[in-house]
Amino acid sequence: MAGKASLRFQRPPVIAAAACVAGKKEGEGPLGPLYDQVDESDLFGADSWEKAESAMQKRAAQLALKKGNASPDQVRYLFAGDLLGQLIATSFGTMELGIPLFGLYGACSTMGEALCLGAMTVNAGYGDQVMAMTSSHFATAEKQFRFPLAYGNQRPLSATWTVTGCGSLLLTPWGSEGLARIPAVTVGRIEDLGIRDSMNMGAAMAPAAFHTIEQNFLDLGVDETWYDQIITGDLGMIGSRILLDLMKEKGRNLKGIHRDCGCLVYHNRRQDTHSGGSGCGCSALVLCAYILPKIRSGEWKRVLFVPTGALLSTVSFNEGQSIPGIAHGVVIEGMR
Amino acid sequence: MAGKASLRFQRPPVIAAAACVAGKKEGEGPLGPLYDQVDESDLFGADSWEKAESAMQKRAAQLALKKGNASPDQVRYLFAGDLLGQLIATSFGTMELGIPLFGLYGACSTMGEALCLGAMTVNAGYGDQVMAMTSSHFATAEKQFRFPLAYGNQRPLSATWTVTGCGSLLLTPWGSEGLARIPAVTVGRIEDLGIRDSMNMGAAMAPAAFHTIEQNFLDLGVDETWYDQIITGDLGMIGSRILLDLMKEKGRNLKGIHRDCGCLVYHNRRQDTHSGGSGCGCSALVLCAYILPKIRSGEWKRVLFVPTGALLSTVSFNEGQSIPGIAHGVVIEGMR
Repeated sequence: MAGKASLRFQRPPVIAAAACVAGKKEGEGPLGPLYDQVDESDLFGADSWEKAESAMQKRAAQLALKKGNASPDQVRYLFAGDLLGQLIATSFGTMELGIPLFGLYGACSTMGEALCLGAMTVNAGYGDQVMAMTSSHFATAEKQFRFPLAYGNQRPLSATWTVTGCGSLLLTPWGSEGLARIPAVTVGRIEDLGIRDSMNMGAAMAPAAFHTIEQNFLDLGVDETWYDQIITGDLGMIGSRILLDLMKEKGRNLKGIHRDCGCLVYHNRRQDTHSGGSGCGCSALVLCAYILPKIRSGEWKRVLFVPTGALLSTVSFNEGQSIPGIAHGVVIEGMR
Repeated sequence: MAGKASLRFQRPPVIAAAACVAGKKEGEGPLGPLYDQVDESDLFGADSWEKAESAMQKRAAQLALKKGNASPDQVRYLFAGDLLGQLIATSFGTMELGIPLFGLYGACSTMGEALCLGAMTVNAGYGDQVMAMTSSHFATAEKQFRFPLAYGNQRPLSATWTVTGCGSLLLTPWGSEGLARIPAVTVGRIEDLGIRDSMNMGAAMAPAAFHTIEQNFLDLGVDETWYDQIITGDLGMIGSRILLDLMKEKGRNLKGIHRDCGCLVYHNRRQDTHSGGSGCGCSALVLCAYILPKIRSGEWKRVLFVPTGALLSTVSFNEGQSIPGIAHGVVIEGMR
């Protein structure tokens, strides 16, 4: 394994506030009652899916600011991204905020990337308030990566369902009050085992999750016992099984410790979501609505949050390229 | 104007090495002899334009590493991006390097975004070697944003020509030897004046360049006289004229101080490139081949480098949305 990829913060930045907004199907999922807002139309008051995704970002950002008692001009930097080509959901969703913007793309791992950079920025003293935000929308993603909804595309059982959702987090320096803190991050490398099936992204991303988790253990000198939970982004049921197999080969038993946002977000059988949820809204929703409250309540002391991304486009896929994966690790622990 | 967007580094990070690789048309431009490598086929040994762009990134990264006397596993983090949907040029171009990756999207401003984050990372002590890299390719960009080359698309005079090129820079901490240093950065906000003509991106980006330059002056307490040159990314001839007009309204005369990478990269009339060059390879090439050597030689002491980006996609454009712009400012000064 190559050099270090992790950073440890002596005075861990704080997640001061978190807000999330979700679509109808997500609202009907097991975490439905935990989301701050659910839009029953999936349109969020807009007249196109892309504008709907932007409107969702705006709502989530406004909610996070409200919860954090902050105004946009107090937020020094915004780290944000989505799945669409040229990040249009983010550009149109965040422009009215007027916050200096770093546009990010890490496929469904983008919340990990945003939290890594946000924590690095706050820890370095570059800003007292920094925002991390990502979104995805089922309808925009189907159009971007597969077919418009009207086509009635059929999906194999290995496919995941892109989450309609957005999570927005406000990061503040050590010493401030908040929900949780980020004592370390592990930035991901691209891993490519040659998977070419775009309807099985869990398989493409599992090796990346595996390597990032192992790198985190190595860099920080810990192992799986250091964490109450290791929660991957959106491997879904197939990818999660592969991750557990890879871990087992290393002699690690993650049973009971490992969860996956893609498996948590829907009633998979009842909601016909096959392998689970995906999209950079998936890990964002689960983080804001489920993980942070459990850390805050003290149920979990320390979680390794590992959003995973499949780095494909329709162009690369149609040209016969493989689907590389990436995963970023964020250690999140309670305030006490 | 809202709060601060700039950071000043007391011990400025150093640009230790820079390398650039360009296509045939760029090689025939005024800066042609200054590029490290020119590929006469524009294919860089690959069999598709997308793979060509990735191959170009790989070459530029390898050259920068060689010049900086570094190996990939010594590079702590890579900040990189391109113009293509889901950043496929970057994913496939950088994966063999195995460097922990932050994928960035800021349209043609991405080299500014990468340098801001790279300098912030090095300055915070998060890594002794960090890489910033961006690319664009005429053929992949035409396919992504307009039409495949075989269509023989005609272009209005306000259009720019996407540069086939990649620049890669190695950043190291204060105290190390190198070509130049980065004493300050100004992170851009999205500016949208409602321009809807995707064949006139200079007009869409000029207000963003204007605001970033003004924000830089305000935050650092300086004005245009502090800089030997203010060099924008790829406004082209039309965008540059608009920027100078906006500056004039503010009572600032940038004549003789302002240059634009889009105007520098081609013999615009002879090479039929209309308003100039664009693409995130444009400012990357001009920075590596032209700006840094002039700073190194002492001809320029301090430059404000302002890559500009037009945040559109074919989807946002076809849905009748405007073209927001963004520009990131990077102060670059000589080592002495």
